Amino acid sequence: MTLGQDRQNKDGFFRLEVKKAIITAAGKNQRTLPLQSLVDRDGTPKTALRIIIEEVMSAGIEEVCVVIYPGDESAFKAAAGSHATQLHFVEQREPLGYGHAVHCAREFTTGQPFLLLVGDHLYVPRGPKSCAQQLVNVATAERCSVSAVQATHESKLPYYGAVGGKLVPGSKGIYQIENVIEKPTPTEAEQRLIVPGLRAGHYLCFFGMHLLTPALMEILGEQVTRAADNETIQLTPALAKLAAREHYFACELDGRRYDIGAKYGLLVAQLALALCGQDREEVLMNLVELLAGRF
Amino acid sequence: MTLGQDRQNKDGFFRLEVKKAIITAAGKNQRTLPLQSLVDRDGTPKTALRIIIEEVMSAGIEEVCVVIYPGDESAFKAAAGSHATQLHFVEQREPLGYGHAVHCAREFTTGQPFLLLVGDHLYVPRGPKSCAQQLVNVATAERCSVSAVQATHESKLPYYGAVGGKLVPGSKGIYQIENVIEKPTPTEAEQRLIVPGLRAGHYLCFFGMHLLTPALMEILGEQVTRAADNETIQLTPALAKLAAREHYFACELDGRRYDIGAKYGLLVAQLALALCGQDREEVLMNLVELLAGRF
Repeated sequence: MTLGQDRQNKDGFFRLEVKKAIITAAGKNQRTLPLQSLVDRDGTPKTALRIIIEEVMSAGIEEVCVVIYPGDESAFKAAAGSHATQLHFVEQREPLGYGHAVHCAREFTTGQPFLLLVGDHLYVPRGPKSCAQQLVNVATAERCSVSAVQATHESKLPYYGAVGGKLVPGSKGIYQIENVIEKPTPTEAEQRLIVPGLRAGHYLCFFGMHLLTPALMEILGEQVTRAADNETIQLTPALAKLAAREHYFACELDGRRYDIGAKYGLLVAQLALALCGQDREEVLMNLVELLAGRF
Repeated sequence: MTLGQDRQNKDGFFRLEVKKAIITAAGKNQRTLPLQSLVDRDGTPKTALRIIIEEVMSAGIEEVCVVIYPGDESAFKAAAGSHATQLHFVEQREPLGYGHAVHCAREFTTGQPFLLLVGDHLYVPRGPKSCAQQLVNVATAERCSVSAVQATHESKLPYYGAVGGKLVPGSKGIYQIENVIEKPTPTEAEQRLIVPGLRAGHYLCFFGMHLLTPALMEILGEQVTRAADNETIQLTPALAKLAAREHYFACELDGRRYDIGAKYGLLVAQLALALCGQDREEVLMNLVELLAGRF
């Protein structure tokens, strides 16, 4: 019985507990990004990996599995600092897609729900609760898979996976997912992804953070079994299958994501952290001096 | 005969040619900094190492020796990208100081002058000529060792090596070095480092870039031979000896240095590069959006 079905049973006793997280960092253009240095909101210099690990820890996660490119383990252990002891490592030996990377961690999660993050996004919440914490809270209350999403202008659809569905009555920013499409065309989006209540021209695109039940890992397993040699396995088709099989929600979180793999991604993420952090004044002063050409 | 003595002979035939550079990157807190990613002024994402290598190449350097922490070679080769073939690597097996690190590269430079840079500083010139190019030009014209310096407020003396001396008559920003002191106290600075013509309370502090004759490597060799087991060898005392032995100049360059090892060093360096580069408008727009809280 999957957790989603369990929720449908409404037995009232079952609680979804999330103690494990997967961070994927094996991609060719992604593997050095978690090793980049930034100053976190608390004013402490940390690697991006450490900031992401602290994000998942803030949501009550106890064990983290990092999916890495073969040979990267020692660099990642060093980058994790004092958190290295809580890490497991799995190598993705062939670059067969994001779904394949997640499936590499199947022995780590067996039978348990898990938080899934990419190793090249950082999250800055607006309030006191971290984005991971907000997502886990929704999944725990709803007892099903939940993907974090962000209302995104249609011009950015070529970069993201997007979902269509309906607002859960009485909820704030929680949607029952009906369709999932990777990088939809404008026509596909208009036909299958319109979400009542969003601003015109906006769609719910993935935020890079998911809370997934074991059913997702089962679906990936089925796809891997059926795949031809060297066929890539993406995550979005598996999420589309999940939506057909179980309750599967999307949730807008109170925060922003920063893709540090984008061209000025590290700069923008660092500024966002600094402007929300304890060194705001110092960094604003640096900015003014630079803009005045005095630095 | 050292090159400095040669210049004193004023034979008119000798030319100082600089074809080699040493980049030091073996320090415990410094070794991952050259691996950090930034977007260069030309809008291309590069590692700090690649930006530094391109800085030295712009000055006509053909071969670069990187002094690394044992085991870091493969990460540095990857970080150098297409420049990896021009690199030599030497490991500093024990953390015995900056002078010792430079001395590790003695077999690379034997008998030739060399450009010396640290692996955690980036340079942004005001005009079209790179800082390394400006420094090499001065050394080639003067045919002696030259250290780049920056007029620095006395409050920052605890962080730098500083020099005292006199402006070379008829020159702009070139000084004949008489004294070299590492992290001088205010009293030492006032007694030995006052440079006529600088703003009150300012001293000439090192910029992190030197052009050095073979005599410097000989002096380091003497210090290493005389040193007790595990005694650290610093660069500044060797530079002080060099000043006593040869002509040795300091030169203010038309540019700024950015220490990416400082707390917000990567952020400030990235902003400085971007604000002088082709993506200036894009980055300014990002800044405005972030400050307006819309990002």
